[in-house]
Amino acid sequence: MISVNKNYANLKDSYLFYKIAQKIKKYTEEHEGAYIYRLGIGDVSQPLSASVIRALHEAVNDQAEKKTFHGYMPECGAPFLREAIAAHYAKKGVNLKTEEVFVSSGASDELGDILDLFDKSSVALVTEPAYPAYVDANVMAGRKILHLPSSEENGFLPPPPSEKADLIYLCSPNNPTGAVYTKEGLRQWVDYANENKSVILFDAAYEAFIEDPSLPRSIFEIDGARTCAIEICSLSKTAGFTGTRLGYTIIPSELNREGMNLNAMWVRNRTTKTNGVSYILQKGGSAVFTEQGQKEVRELISVYKNNAKRLMRAFDEIGLPYFGGKNAPYVWVKCPQNLTSWGFFDYLLEKICVVGTPGSGFGQCGEGYFRFSSFASEEDTEAAAKKMVALLKK
Amino acid sequence: MISVNKNYANLKDSYLFYKIAQKIKKYTEEHEGAYIYRLGIGDVSQPLSASVIRALHEAVNDQAEKKTFHGYMPECGAPFLREAIAAHYAKKGVNLKTEEVFVSSGASDELGDILDLFDKSSVALVTEPAYPAYVDANVMAGRKILHLPSSEENGFLPPPPSEKADLIYLCSPNNPTGAVYTKEGLRQWVDYANENKSVILFDAAYEAFIEDPSLPRSIFEIDGARTCAIEICSLSKTAGFTGTRLGYTIIPSELNREGMNLNAMWVRNRTTKTNGVSYILQKGGSAVFTEQGQKEVRELISVYKNNAKRLMRAFDEIGLPYFGGKNAPYVWVKCPQNLTSWGFFDYLLEKICVVGTPGSGFGQCGEGYFRFSSFASEEDTEAAAKKMVALLKK
Repeated sequence: MISVNKNYANLKDSYLFYKIAQKIKKYTEEHEGAYIYRLGIGDVSQPLSASVIRALHEAVNDQAEKKTFHGYMPECGAPFLREAIAAHYAKKGVNLKTEEVFVSSGASDELGDILDLFDKSSVALVTEPAYPAYVDANVMAGRKILHLPSSEENGFLPPPPSEKADLIYLCSPNNPTGAVYTKEGLRQWVDYANENKSVILFDAAYEAFIEDPSLPRSIFEIDGARTCAIEICSLSKTAGFTGTRLGYTIIPSELNREGMNLNAMWVRNRTTKTNGVSYILQKGGSAVFTEQGQKEVRELISVYKNNAKRLMRAFDEIGLPYFGGKNAPYVWVKCPQNLTSWGFFDYLLEKICVVGTPGSGFGQCGEGYFRFSSFASEEDTEAAAKKMVALLKK
Repeated sequence: MISVNKNYANLKDSYLFYKIAQKIKKYTEEHEGAYIYRLGIGDVSQPLSASVIRALHEAVNDQAEKKTFHGYMPECGAPFLREAIAAHYAKKGVNLKTEEVFVSSGASDELGDILDLFDKSSVALVTEPAYPAYVDANVMAGRKILHLPSSEENGFLPPPPSEKADLIYLCSPNNPTGAVYTKEGLRQWVDYANENKSVILFDAAYEAFIEDPSLPRSIFEIDGARTCAIEICSLSKTAGFTGTRLGYTIIPSELNREGMNLNAMWVRNRTTKTNGVSYILQKGGSAVFTEQGQKEVRELISVYKNNAKRLMRAFDEIGLPYFGGKNAPYVWVKCPQNLTSWGFFDYLLEKICVVGTPGSGFGQCGEGYFRFSSFASEEDTEAAAKKMVALLKK
């Protein structure tokens, strides 16, 4: 008899964003015609930029003609895109070899897949509050998980713990709190990881939102990171690829553990378990890294930054304490009136049709907090901000 | 200290198609200007059809406008595509619920990912010769693997063994042999799997090549398959999506093992570890299942079928025994002159620049055989066939 992966039975009943979707579904079924202001899931609202659209059309045209048609792509990524990403890093002062850049279908896919490189016995450390998939993917693998809580006291940027851990999840700028590690803060983690022979999985999905030039946009800006870190990035939030899908992963050639080279292991994984990422998407993604593409990225991001400012103004007016929103697309709010996170969720949905994300969904230490995303449209953000002021201002 | 997945050390030194690519690279470096006739890797040569191209362009246009823009897609697939695939199955007489259809980035990705549903202790049975990733993905997972060889005697269609196995790989039409199970042949496997509470992973990537209407194109044409089988399909060979990427997987709602429902487990896996497949690709893929799309698929496939016929004529002329080629895109040839598979590979490459795939790369019982793919261009296939006749005809 086949044995199934019984770790699945240890997962909580439903995934955070799925539960939110179900609650919205129920509400709209009961309130026909209700318009929902979706500031919950971090999905973007602006269309793809002109350069990306042009590159996608050109790539589709390539697939229509025998002489320009592309079949199987190299499993680790098309050279043109790997080179464009390496050149993009060089502009931040981070030098990478092309073979250290892997193209992926997106950060969430990669965060799940990459766990295959590690043994089940490795202990995962999740700095919380955190993207719930970090925990769930490790529950599915049957791994022991250490939850490292953070709080207002340490600015939601916890330093390394005294105990040892193997597989460390760091997300900076942070989802959900919007907190960003300084170089010194990241250096402590890099030192910890090198000392304990841990590996840091650095989720840099929101790096493009950093405006303070003193803050690190890549963990590889920190000395020593090349021997302890994997960086996982995405075009979802940078260039609006949530529904188009494309990401990339950096695995330095010096990253060895137990005599095995993680870059070489990942090459073997990709060549065995995938047939590469769509030529069309890789062509579209490569446009993001051109000079014009980067200009368009900054325009896209400024829309969301204005949304974040609009939300922060509303919370200032209400007198609600908040974090993030400056170098990150999320505003992390303390729930008013001693409401729990889900209590505040239900209150906002029922009273003013505004949807955010309950902080408790990101870990226990997120209870009593609430995440607002700046990725909704300007109109929805403006309307939601006004409605919140009207509802919550004393 | 982190513990890496040491099963990777048990993998053979290099993946079959990678080794072929390296050999070609070496040859072309040493023979400047040499033109290689690539009948090795099963990559298609015909461009995407008109309906697919049109749908892809339309989808790109949707991503350019705020009002038609698509962000995150449902993790298990867009309803429009899941419904189109279910309707396509209904035409073969197989009734599926929409929720039993999962959209994937391709069969190779899915064959790797789906192993997450099963415990390491489950024993994998690989009917050989076989696509080498079946074995390698299970080596990576540390699973015990039973190799079930086949031979000319059973038409490369082995019946179930007397011993028990848990996770059974069947590929029909077969890669590499081109053999196709009859309904009766598949029924034996379905009965075996239900009896032993095994799960069959049915790789149906080549189903569109079946022309004999008595042969099953889906395992779900067999009574009892809904309680023991997962079907993994691809648009790569059907509609030329090798470099565009899209596939689908059928997990029946009745498939339970050890009290757990595999469809529900896969929903949980996808919602945790992915953010869905690109809207653009799903739109392109949905065009394949329209009436016009299916007409274009048949035209595409007829090109490859003519190539297979051209190859078979050459082998008839040479007097080389072969298998497949009729209901499958592969022609499986017995190596001449008692050459080993790699010996024949080197001989063809060095003498006439023709590349095929050594049968021994698909398992020990493939030694002495050689796979030719019909997916090359008509011109290359014609030229390669002529060159082989000139070289090998006594």
